[in-house]
Amino acid sequence: MQPAATDGLPGEFALIARHFRPLAGPAALGLTDDAALLVPPAGRELVLTVDAMVAGVHFLPDDPPDLVARKLMRVNLSDLAAKGAVPLGYLLTVAAPRATPEAWFAGFAAGLAQDQAAFGFALLGGDTTSTPGPFSLSLTALGHVAPGGMIRRAGAQAGDGVFVTGTIGDGALGLLAAQGRLVDHSGYLRDRYRLPQPRIGLLRPGLVAAGMDVSDGLVQDLGHLCRAAGLAATIEAALVPLSPAARAAGPEWLPTCLTGGDDYELLLAAPAAAEPELRTVAAEHGVPLTRIGHFHAGPPGVIVRGADGIVMPLPVGGWSHF
Amino acid sequence: MQPAATDGLPGEFALIARHFRPLAGPAALGLTDDAALLVPPAGRELVLTVDAMVAGVHFLPDDPPDLVARKLMRVNLSDLAAKGAVPLGYLLTVAAPRATPEAWFAGFAAGLAQDQAAFGFALLGGDTTSTPGPFSLSLTALGHVAPGGMIRRAGAQAGDGVFVTGTIGDGALGLLAAQGRLVDHSGYLRDRYRLPQPRIGLLRPGLVAAGMDVSDGLVQDLGHLCRAAGLAATIEAALVPLSPAARAAGPEWLPTCLTGGDDYELLLAAPAAAEPELRTVAAEHGVPLTRIGHFHAGPPGVIVRGADGIVMPLPVGGWSHF
Repeated sequence: MQPAATDGLPGEFALIARHFRPLAGPAALGLTDDAALLVPPAGRELVLTVDAMVAGVHFLPDDPPDLVARKLMRVNLSDLAAKGAVPLGYLLTVAAPRATPEAWFAGFAAGLAQDQAAFGFALLGGDTTSTPGPFSLSLTALGHVAPGGMIRRAGAQAGDGVFVTGTIGDGALGLLAAQGRLVDHSGYLRDRYRLPQPRIGLLRPGLVAAGMDVSDGLVQDLGHLCRAAGLAATIEAALVPLSPAARAAGPEWLPTCLTGGDDYELLLAAPAAAEPELRTVAAEHGVPLTRIGHFHAGPPGVIVRGADGIVMPLPVGGWSHF
Repeated sequence: MQPAATDGLPGEFALIARHFRPLAGPAALGLTDDAALLVPPAGRELVLTVDAMVAGVHFLPDDPPDLVARKLMRVNLSDLAAKGAVPLGYLLTVAAPRATPEAWFAGFAAGLAQDQAAFGFALLGGDTTSTPGPFSLSLTALGHVAPGGMIRRAGAQAGDGVFVTGTIGDGALGLLAAQGRLVDHSGYLRDRYRLPQPRIGLLRPGLVAAGMDVSDGLVQDLGHLCRAAGLAATIEAALVPLSPAARAAGPEWLPTCLTGGDDYELLLAAPAAAEPELRTVAAEHGVPLTRIGHFHAGPPGVIVRGADGIVMPLPVGGWSHF
């Protein structure tokens, strides 16, 4: 596609002007300079994270572009949420096949606009390029926290409860449903795969001992909290919250729910004394919160007990790209 | 490739631990958390920019991985340099084909390490993923400036000189040489294409009226300065500094030098009164600086006069991805 140039500018600049300039926050200088200029919020620390998404790996090539944009933004917002950070702004790269219709960019930008408004985010800058391969996207997210207030992976203590928000496994099952490998009459699972719900605003400094979001699978990500704390964790499979759609898929999918990726729920460590306040905050936000196990002394790693009390054998690890 | 897992972690994490963790600055928290935590330098403003590079578009698939890494870093450092910013840190995404040998990652990381040390940069975070397509890379660079000190595209006044650093056109000719379409016995042009020289540290607040780096071609990028200022610019083709290798290619390549991309030299506007100090600073840094024309009233755009005084016809615009 070669969109008509406007103002004597070649297509690439016209594309940026039409679709991305309306998303630019004040620091982006209208996307008319070579860099953004950001005055950091006074007395705050910056939290920075970046995620890439590739068509055929992280989303399906025919996924609607607005949902692709919103997922790209939300997987990064989910990291900010898990760190207790307030969203500030983002930089974006889009490598798109040359034959990409302008409607794809319009849809992509519309998705960004929708979630910028929903989450108080603003575009700071970006780069648009062609690629001979599939769509390849990246988003760098900036947030801010009070000094010392970032929630870390490290910090769990023996005896702390293991908590998760929402339901686990919908993302992994939703991918299978989108691929036609699992029946999903309502489309609920597919929608959960396509559009995660970042838990922005739930956490604040001191509310939990440690935390991260579940992106590579509950068991693998809980393993990260264990290694950071030098502790083991035992969780009860029967306590792991599943959506009605995930339950309807049948018990044979439980291991997939426990180890599959793309949940983007929060995984938290909190001592018993903090549990009432954590539950109150979650309830105020309308976010389901479930205690699924606890941390304890032992070689860093995750033990999953089945409903029969016997340790469940699970496939090793979660999603790895290499 | 499936590198042997270490510490019970799957290959992706081992890959990150081996090759990228040694590059992590203090704010990266050892790349063991989900986000970086950056305390912004007190009393400074942040300058942020991002560039993507795709194999087959921005570099050649068989380019040495250390040079690919250094070019990715340097094209972003060039933006920071042109804005007068001090390098602070960067976030990185690498989408690599699944069959990528570990030696590629080792070489890529070695290139990053080399230029981190050279330019005072540090890795803040990143994301590594597989792709069914070509290598697709992005780097988000953070720098800092004194309040109000960022050099903008806007700011040129009628009468200001147009200046460039270094030589122009080597990058565009170097790509042709690397593709075997131009003779380049010494390899000088190819090396200039592969490894730009960001002019970090040259500019400081108030030294120039406006500036940017030349990445999409001298004429196109000068057009950006013109539009930002609401002015025209006239440059003399005979004054545009060419390297001996570019001159040796022959005068028929002059239009390519003037409109081709990948120079990563500075393009500056400065009034006559500022020229002596600008020349002194450039000389102190050992950076060639050449006045090639001036800004004047007129419809925003660039006029290039040939050695015969007649306006040269040039292909419209520079590089556009769409």
